[in-house]
Order: sequence, then structure tokens, then C-alpha cells
Amino acid sequence: MANIKSISELLNDYQNGYSLEQGFYKNPDIYKREIKNIFHKNWILAGHTSQIPELGDIFLMDVANESLIITRTKKGEVKALINVCRHRGSHVCLERKGNAKAFTCPYHAWSYDLEGKLIAARYMQDDFDKTENGLHQAHVELAGNLIFISLAKEPLSLSEMQNDLKDVFEQFGFNNMKLAQQKTYPIKANWKLAVENYQECYHCAPSHKDFAKIHAMALNPAIFAKKKQDFLKKSKSHIRTSPSSFYFDLANEGQEGFQYDRNPLINDMRSGSAGGKPVAPLLGHMPEYENAASEFMVGPVTFFLIYDDHMLGYRFLPTSLDECVCDLFWFVRDDAVEGKDYDLETLTWLWHVTILDDEKIILNNKKGVDSDFYGPGKFSTMESMEQHFLTWYLSAIK
Amino acid sequence: MANIKSISELLNDYQNGYSLEQGFYKNPDIYKREIKNIFHKNWILAGHTSQIPELGDIFLMDVANESLIITRTKKGEVKALINVCRHRGSHVCLERKGNAKAFTCPYHAWSYDLEGKLIAARYMQDDFDKTENGLHQAHVELAGNLIFISLAKEPLSLSEMQNDLKDVFEQFGFNNMKLAQQKTYPIKANWKLAVENYQECYHCAPSHKDFAKIHAMALNPAIFAKKKQDFLKKSKSHIRTSPSSFYFDLANEGQEGFQYDRNPLINDMRSGSAGGKPVAPLLGHMPEYENAASEFMVGPVTFFLIYDDHMLGYRFLPTSLDECVCDLFWFVRDDAVEGKDYDLETLTWLWHVTILDDEKIILNNKKGVDSDFYGPGKFSTMESMEQHFLTWYLSAIK
Amino acid sequence: MANIKSISELLNDYQNGYSLEQGFYKNPDIYKREIKNIFHKNWILAGHTSQIPELGDIFLMDVANESLIITRTKKGEVKALINVCRHRGSHVCLERKGNAKAFTCPYHAWSYDLEGKLIAARYMQDDFDKTENGLHQAHVELAGNLIFISLAKEPLSLSEMQNDLKDVFEQFGFNNMKLAQQKTYPIKANWKLAVENYQECYHCAPSHKDFAKIHAMALNPAIFAKKKQDFLKKSKSHIRTSPSSFYFDLANEGQEGFQYDRNPLINDMRSGSAGGKPVAPLLGHMPEYENAASEFMVGPVTFFLIYDDHMLGYRFLPTSLDECVCDLFWFVRDDAVEGKDYDLETLTWLWHVTILDDEKIILNNKKGVDSDFYGPGKFSTMESMEQHFLTWYLSAIK
Repeated sequence: MANIKSISELLNDYQNGYSLEQGFYKNPDIYKREIKNIFHKNWILAGHTSQIPELGDIFLMDVANESLIITRTKKGEVKALINVCRHRGSHVCLERKGNAKAFTCPYHAWSYDLEGKLIAARYMQDDFDKTENGLHQAHVELAGNLIFISLAKEPLSLSEMQNDLKDVFEQFGFNNMKLAQQKTYPIKANWKLAVENYQECYHCAPSHKDFAKIHAMALNPAIFAKKKQDFLKKSKSHIRTSPSSFYFDLANEGQEGFQYDRNPLINDMRSGSAGGKPVAPLLGHMPEYENAASEFMVGPVTFFLIYDDHMLGYRFLPTSLDECVCDLFWFVRDDAVEGKDYDLETLTWLWHVTILDDEKIILNNKKGVDSDFYGPGKFSTMESMEQHFLTWYLSAIK
Repeated sequence: MANIKSISELLNDYQNGYSLEQGFYKNPDIYKREIKNIFHKNWILAGHTSQIPELGDIFLMDVANESLIITRTKKGEVKALINVCRHRGSHVCLERKGNAKAFTCPYHAWSYDLEGKLIAARYMQDDFDKTENGLHQAHVELAGNLIFISLAKEPLSLSEMQNDLKDVFEQFGFNNMKLAQQKTYPIKANWKLAVENYQECYHCAPSHKDFAKIHAMALNPAIFAKKKQDFLKKSKSHIRTSPSSFYFDLANEGQEGFQYDRNPLINDMRSGSAGGKPVAPLLGHMPEYENAASEFMVGPVTFFLIYDDHMLGYRFLPTSLDECVCDLFWFVRDDAVEGKDYDLETLTWLWHVTILDDEKIILNNKKGVDSDFYGPGKFSTMESMEQHFLTWYLSAIK
Repeated sequence: MANIKSISELLNDYQNGYSLEQGFYKNPDIYKREIKNIFHKNWILAGHTSQIPELGDIFLMDVANESLIITRTKKGEVKALINVCRHRGSHVCLERKGNAKAFTCPYHAWSYDLEGKLIAARYMQDDFDKTENGLHQAHVELAGNLIFISLAKEPLSLSEMQNDLKDVFEQFGFNNMKLAQQKTYPIKANWKLAVENYQECYHCAPSHKDFAKIHAMALNPAIFAKKKQDFLKKSKSHIRTSPSSFYFDLANEGQEGFQYDRNPLINDMRSGSAGGKPVAPLLGHMPEYENAASEFMVGPVTFFLIYDDHMLGYRFLPTSLDECVCDLFWFVRDDAVEGKDYDLETLTWLWHVTILDDEKIILNNKKGVDSDFYGPGKFSTMESMEQHFLTWYLSAIK
């Protein structure tokens, strides 16, 4: 309720090693800046090619105020079309997923092909040029059959990420995965409170007892360091263990940030599941469970956690200043058969309960951040990743 | 999410022949200007004298933030009183319709007569002047027993409309109609998206298959032109067919805009109903169905469609920047008996389903207009009326 | 919808003897100013010590955006802790009432004792000083076992109130009361419309027929004056009848405002209840019913009505510009046994129905105040207390 500071005052007053002050979560100008400088610029996970196997397959993706149509064109390419008719602006595609021959606007019947080209517009004046009235498009890039989009005019390069992670994609068989399940979790809080929550495992032990039974990173930092050292020593290396740290403020100029690391699970835990039990066939060419999990992230809001038998994707997107959604994606190997090789409820249990816990945490965090008595607090040693996120964030909205 | 342009920037950047840009639908200053320059100025349909036949009959009407009491006074006049107590501001009349001897404020019991005069105020200081504390009033004018109101200090004149349409009112027997039904349809979109939707029949064929079976104007413009020519040639002229075009930007200085036209229905369609079948006794002195319908409009948000056996009224009003209501009024001749001469469900079917279709269209249109990738699109040849609306609108909010 | 005036324009244009203009209820800057200058400054009722009899007992209290934990510390003191973790800002206490040994933040497990001291914070850097990271606190002062809090850095003094009302607290046995019931009534209107409603009994006769049967102050002012004169003459004086008027603009510099008065009930009415019948054992050392009730108020939003057998507390707090809550507290003597000495439904009936009536009144008032045709209206002779409130309010937000 205090007078809201301007963006430049907020940036100026930020003190390294501390959380953000209230204005970063409440100032509508900050939100506009974030949409422009982050969500209309950085790369964001759209989904996976297994969602659109056939020519004409489509699904819709929402990014803040924007609706995108992800299509498999007649040439087999993947396109991301802005779902806004070039005539009066109606959404042209109303179904969340399906198969289409073309997109005929439900308002005045302007019609676009799967590549977004305007192919029919009734009773237009003679000087009307159809070639200039195709649907706007986002950039698309595939990485191990994951579909990423960027709304930038000139997007950041993903080349370093693609080169660096080639071996990881190969080892885990990214090109032979499929999306088993996607769930959307709306959270009534600013998107940064959700991403910040994801950036640190300081809260894992107090907040996520199921997660903490499985992941060593939830332990006391000294114990975790010891466990990781042991793990690296005895690692049988079917999967790369050496980390890549080009995330957030560490990204190279003109490149999208990314990160990779591999960490031990606790004792004989084999997967991210109840009791650490296997939940699906081993990914890629893995001969056995390694009691470990890999993480990788691309861009500021897309995160993956790769167990030996399935991969989890996390995507955070704002829907307004005070609301965001978290989308969870569960991937398994593409020849796994639901009901036989994996059971959806068993597969999705751990992260379903974990995100529901996080939702409660984030809502309580929001309540306190709304207080006029809230002020930035000092980070612990377990929140260094969050500091990287904030350092990047502050330069992104400059 | 882009920075919102000022009113003068928006006006300046408008390009003729194109739809409005996003700011016209999202800028709160635009909305304030519209309330002041349009909804507190132009004439708006309030209802029909058949709703208040007896002395003391009243009904409430909402115009944006305002509540008006339409009353039949003891002299038999129609008044429009602002429903705001002159003491502390409470609504003085809480019932949507009924019969009243006076309006006693439910808060402190100040009492006003049917003409709005303050007749009782308890325990006021000696210098208090009751004659200066009557309810504020809107202007009222009747046209063929339709009640119009204007919140302007000095309203536009309706004289040209009254003179021009005298014959039409006579032919359709406006003075011998009654309101059979009124329904309110809330639409979660800016009011202009709803009015723009009403202004063109470019969307009729793709969107309204029931309407398109009945009205020739939903056809290909060339075919419609031919059908209209044929109709005018063979017209038996019980009802005037010559148009009046003083609508929107074509209105004369100081006069409220209005329009009249008569158009053929398709083939042997006789009314706006399922299968084009008659739904009520013929209006006025009409001897037979003419397979045609007349339209007329008064002011920017009131539209009528007159079939040979009933009349439909349309009224659009904003309730906030992002929400509006559409009120539909069905009129029949005043001696028609419900259940015997007409059935309400049969009478109201076509436009009930049509407005529900339009609501969906308008909501999809809003979603796209909210996109930062939306930009004004070029009008087709079938959207010339919408251009007239926009040309008028832009000068109205200057 | 007219352009909203600035705070200084609003203050400048206010005319004595009239209600406030629309801007005072609609301008978001006014609301921010009120939070700072009133709700983060003046004393507000938190509750009663009978709610936290045991060491470690706690309850939560909301003041606008703030959550406070009212605790009974191990030393037996009452504290008011700001429910915002000094680390990342989460609420540290999620239960509305209960008993606690300490408050462990559900996010990262920082732990605070009952006095707000930080007692544990895992894995913090070496330079972290726990003594500087205790929970922020509000000031607390007890008055006859009522708990008052102030969010000011340097609060106003309550000393004059405490001295002046010592005899009243003694006579009514404030130290031997308990809270029998508390109910929260949300009202979708600006908080001032609710407080203004409480400030005058001009509306009592038209709006509250149950109340008006019991309280003489609802009568014609001349009749009430006569009844009060009679009452004072024959008063048997078990309870002080002489008024104290340091309320609102009459408060002394640096002192919180307060007021006390005693007024007759009508005829043989003995309590604020159906038919004026007794509803609980007599308070304090009172030997018999006196057919009267006392009022007292402390600060701008806390009001009490003391019948001979129970006391009612009223507290108004904003939750946003357009919404507030009214909390009602019913107190009885502390040795009264529910179900035997009093029945909750009988005890709470009168003011439950009265506040529900008031909620309707306030909502109708809001609707009218939202009208662009609303303007300040002249006060009656029965609204002098409201004028005191407004005079104080205008200087408070300067």
C-alpha cells in the first residue's frame, strides 16, 4: 500500500544477496516490462512432437495473453501460429487440440492454411493483398523432439545448448520419448514467486517430505556434497555427469541460457516416485538404474528433471500480475504402452503432490510479500541458484 | 500489454477502412470519455409505455453506473428520475418494477413524489430548501410509444427522426404495440465489440445459420442486390420502402442519428422465426405478409428489426471497460393475447439463439483483440456500416 | 466515471455540513493514504485476553493487508507479531487460533519464539545476525482486558482514555468479562460508508425496527432529549452517566480519541435483545437492570455498546478500496456458563439482524455514491456525530 516505486528505483535499490522487494511483485509496469523483455523474447517449451505426429495435427498453447497454434504442416514441419485473425482479431482456432486441414475464422470465415497463409477472404476490396495477411508466427526450434517457441523478432540462439547437450539427448533417447501426461496448475501469485520457489532446495526438507526421501539435494549441504562426491567417483557413466552452467546470468551473449547437471538420489532410490520405485521402462539405451537424476533447463521458465525411466518438464507462465500457471509434462519412452508398461497415476504421483505443496507455499509467501512490513530477506547458502535467477532477471527487465 | 496509447494518439493513428486498434478497447481513459460523450449524451431506448400503463407504474433502467426510475406520474407523463437520494446518495427505489405512490429512501426516509420532487425530509436544519433537493432527471421523449432517455444537459434533437419516421410508425402501428418480453444478455467484452458485431452482416452466413435462412442480407452482396431490386419493383407498399440514412456520421448537426430501411426476406419467409413462419398477429393495418423486414435505429446503441408480425429491439450498454449487456425487447400488437395469439418461446427463439451465437463470437474476438500481436484489419465490402459507426465514434470521443 | 480528483482537490472542495463527494470513496490514492495515516497509526481492537488465557495461546487478526499474531508469551505478556517471515516473507503462522510453542515458517523453517525472536535459521551465512531478524511487532495495550494494537512507529497515547474510563471499566467489570462470540460480516463497500452508517441514528427509525423498539436514541430528537433528561434525573448511578467527549476531532493532541455516554432504553427495556429481555447475568457489581445502555469508543473504528448484562464490540476494517469487514464481538461476564446462563443465539440476535440490515443499506448507498449524478448532501440535525467523524477524517488524511 506504500507508494509503488518505479522500475528504475526498484532496480537501483536492489541489494545483492537478498530477495526482491514488494514492488517487483505488485507494480503493473514491471509486469508489462516482463512480458516485453522476457515472455516475448526468451525461449519457452511448447510441448513435444509426439503431440502432433500426423500432418494437420495441432494443439493450442497460451503464453500470458497470447494463444499460439502449434501445427504439423503438410511438409511435416512444426509451426507456431499466432491465433489472431488478421481481419478483426478473433481467435481462428477454438479447439485445444485436434487435426485440421485449415483454420477458418469462426467470425467472418477468413481461412488460413496450416502454415498460416491466408487462403480465402470473402468480398474483400480489389486492393487487398492476401499474401500480406497471413497469421503472425512465433519462431520454432526442436531440441530432441521437444518443441520450443520464441515470440522475439530476432530470437536468442539455441546453438550452444544444442551442441552442449547433444550427448545428453542421445543418452536419454530424447528423440524416442513421448508425452504421457500434461497437467496445468493455476497459482494465484506472481510468476516470480513460483520460479523462485523452483530455484532452491532450501525449502525441500521442511516442505516436501516425499521429495526429500528421494533426492539427496534436499539434505544438509555438507552431506549432499559428500554424497555427490561419492556418486561422481563410482559413476558408471551411461549418462553424462559433468555439468554445464550457462544458466541465467551465466549465459553467453546472444545465447539462450541453459544448464545441465546430474545428482545422486538417496541410497537405493531409483526414480521420482513413491518409495523411489521404477515407474516406466528405462529411457534411451540405459542398461540399468543409476540411483541418480539429471536436471536441465532452457531459458528462464522451462525446467526438466530426468529420471532414468521418465522425464518431468516444468513450465511457468504468468497470466496476470497476480496469477500464473505451472504446466507439468511427464515423458516416457515412445514404445512404452500405458496400462502395461506404466500406470499414469503411479507415474505422476510424486510431482503432482509436490506441486500442490508448492502452490500452498507460494500462496503463503504471496500473502506475506503483500504486507507493508515485508522487506527483502537474506539468502541462505542453499539459495545461490535463486541469486543467479535474480541477477539475470534484473538485467532482463532493465 | 504494450504501453497503452493516449486518446489523442489513438485518434491520430486510426486508419480509415480498418478496425480499431487494441487501445480503444483497453484504455480506461477511453471508457471514461465514452461515458461522458456518448452514454451521458445520446438518446437510449428505455422501454415502452406499455410497461407503465397505470399512474404510479415504474421500472428501473441501468445505464452504465447509473440507475434510472422510469415513472408514470399522476399527470400521466413519463419521467426518468436518477435513482440517487439527494441526501447521502442511496438508491431510493430498490424494486425493478412495480407501482409506487412515492419513493421513500430506505436509508433516512427522505421521500420523493413520482415527479422526483422532495416531499419529506426529517429533522433538517431550518435553512434547508426542499425545492432544491428533488431527484435529478434525465430527458424523456416518446416516439411511437417507445420511451427514449438522454442524460445530456441539453440533448440532441429527435425532431428529424420523429418527422421522417411518422409514416413508418403509423404503418406498423407503433402506438398499438406492447412489450411481450425483455431479456438481458451480459457479454464479457467491451461494448464496441458488441455494437460492431451488430453493424455488419459479413459474419451472418458463417455464424448464424438460422438467421441466414431467413434474411436475404446474409447472402452474397451481388445476389442480395438483385433480390432487393426485385423486391422494390414488385413491392405492394403497405409499408414504406424508401430508406432514410441519417445514421452515425451522416446525422445532421444537433440531431440524433437515425436510419430506416426495408429489405426482403428469402423466398417465402414471412417472419423472423423458425422456418420463417408467422408468430403473432400482423402489426398495424397490414393486410398480409410481405416477405420483408424493416430496420430502424435511433442513436448509437438502439436498433430495431420490424417483421410484419412483431418487432425486435436491441440495446447495447457498457457496464465496465470489459463488460457490456445486450437487452432484447420483443414487441407485438397490443391486443394480441399470450398463449392464444402468440407463444413466447416461439416468438423469441430466433434472436435468442442468434444473440447467444454472437456472444461466443464477441468473446473470441475479445481474446484476439487482447493479443499484443493484434492489429487493425481491413474491412470487407460488407462492413461499410461498421465504418460509418467508427467514423462517428471517433468524432464522438474527440 | 468523471475524472477522479486528487487528494488535495478533494480536501479543498469539501464543504462543512455535507457528506463526502464520490472521489473519497473511489480514488485509490485516498485508500493508500488512509492505510498509512489511519490503519497504520490509530489504535484498533484486537480482541480480549479471554481469547488467550494460557501461555502460548494465539489468534490471528487481519488489518487490511496485514496479518498479526496475537500471542500470550511465556512471561504471560500479550504481544502482536507481524505474521511475515523475515527471510522470504511467508506467513509463519497459518492457523487462525490455537496454542504454539514457537512459529516455524512453513517455507524454509526459520523459527521464532512467542515473543517474535528468531531462534533458528538453517544454513545461513556467517555474517547473519539472528537478533536483527525477529518478527516485526505492533504496539499492544490492554484496557480492561481488551487488547488494542497500533501499527504506528510511535503510537498515540491511550493514557487519557485509561484514566477517564477507569470508573466505567470498574463498574461494568471489564476485567471479569469474556468473549462469548465473534462474527465477521464482509461488506462490499468502502469502509467509510460503513463507519458513517454507524455514526448516526438518523437512519435507525426507518431502517432498524427491532433496534428502534429498544433504544430511545432512535426516537424524534426532542422526545429523546426529554427522555434523557428524565433518565439523568432519576438515575440511580450504579453506572457513570456523565459523558466524555474526546472523540474524533475533539481528541487532545497526541492522544487517541475516545468517547463515553450513557443513554436510556425505551420504557422497561432491559437489554439489547428481542423484547428488551435480559440475556445474560448482570455485568460487574450491578444489582439490577437500569433500562439504559452505555456507549464508548476508542480510536476511529472500534465502538462498544454496553448493556447491563452484556457488551457488544464493533470493529470496521477495510480489505480493499471497495470492500470492508465488520467484526462483532459479544462479551458476557466471565463466570457465565453458555447454555445455562446465556444462550448464544438469544444473546447475538439483535445485532446480527441489525448489521445485516446495515449491510443492505450500505450497499444501496454505495450504488448511489458510484453514480456520476451523486453529490454531497446536507446533514440533518441527527448527523452531528458523523460531522465530527468527517472533520477528524479530513485532517487525518491531509
